[in-house]
Amino acid sequence: MASPEIDTLTQALSRLPGLGPRSARRAVLHLVKRRETALDPLLRALEAVAEKLATCSICGNVDTTDPCGICSDTRRDSRSICVVEEVADLWALDRSRLFPGRFHVLGGRLSALDGVRPEDLTIDALLRRIEAGGIDEIVLAMNATLEGQTTSHYIAERIEAFPVRVTQLAHGLPVGGELDYLDEGTLAQALRARRPVA
Amino acid sequence: MASPEIDTLTQALSRLPGLGPRSARRAVLHLVKRRETALDPLLRALEAVAEKLATCSICGNVDTTDPCGICSDTRRDSRSICVVEEVADLWALDRSRLFPGRFHVLGGRLSALDGVRPEDLTIDALLRRIEAGGIDEIVLAMNATLEGQTTSHYIAERIEAFPVRVTQLAHGLPVGGELDYLDEGTLAQALRARRPVA
Repeated sequence: MASPEIDTLTQALSRLPGLGPRSARRAVLHLVKRRETALDPLLRALEAVAEKLATCSICGNVDTTDPCGICSDTRRDSRSICVVEEVADLWALDRSRLFPGRFHVLGGRLSALDGVRPEDLTIDALLRRIEAGGIDEIVLAMNATLEGQTTSHYIAERIEAFPVRVTQLAHGLPVGGELDYLDEGTLAQALRARRPVA
Repeated sequence: MASPEIDTLTQALSRLPGLGPRSARRAVLHLVKRRETALDPLLRALEAVAEKLATCSICGNVDTTDPCGICSDTRRDSRSICVVEEVADLWALDRSRLFPGRFHVLGGRLSALDGVRPEDLTIDALLRRIEAGGIDEIVLAMNATLEGQTTSHYIAERIEAFPVRVTQLAHGLPVGGELDYLDEGTLAQALRARRPVA
């Protein structure tokens, strides 16, 4: 029954992560019933982002400026770079406000299964940033998966020759983690990396 | 850290039903990473709907044409009108494809608590549709709530004088409903409206 325009909008929304056909319909209904307060603002917001969308030529972040807000923020520590797999990881880390430096987005992880090789990631660009100088520390913040860690090791080896400190995120118990419920891999990591009680 | 444009888009999306701040962020990330396949299509779909959005002057449905697709569909039975509280109810009933007639959206329900009086709903417009003739049956499809049923009774009384059949949706056990889990109100309705086994 719905008009083709409304159908198309429902379909476009239902492809967003977290929205299925049912919730997309509810969202469309919400939008069409609230033109001034919901539909128009969303439309203007999308237009603004679509108009300016850019991939940062330095770090690979997606933003509305190039260089991105992080790379052009002079209050941030330009001497340390946190290397992540995806833009999503960059956003997650940045949201935590725990890392004061810059980032580098690899655009994926090495994967024999998916045929992702080093040249498919932005590893060379990372090496060029290090070569250009002014970098003290590279923080490898790959996912704690087999592929993430393989990528981490590979990059660590490639960086070895440069006079920078290479670190990686600690692995162990997550905050609030109960031993009883944790997988053996995490327990093994936590045990292996145990530290003296302060 | 995110640019103001991206922040604004995240906020606009997070106001949709079913999306919180977290899933809105994920949706934005999805959009900005897939410009051609996600962001642009959604933008065009929103534009198309925003451009044509209209409230049907006959039934109150929201659509991209006036009269709406249902009121202008000559294959539908124009002799029966299903009266609903909200556009959402119309869409839900229409999706089921079980009702072949037209609709009438009241725009709410009578509510002493919220100060909604008969003149705040489109009851007069419904009476004019009936007065205009050519209507055999009015199906009252209000919600099975106290306010919905009050509205239903009120409208039934107002229609009494017209030569139309007035019906309402059956109340009873929902499909798959287990007696053990149903509320007393539903059980009482089901018992009161019990029917001879065919």
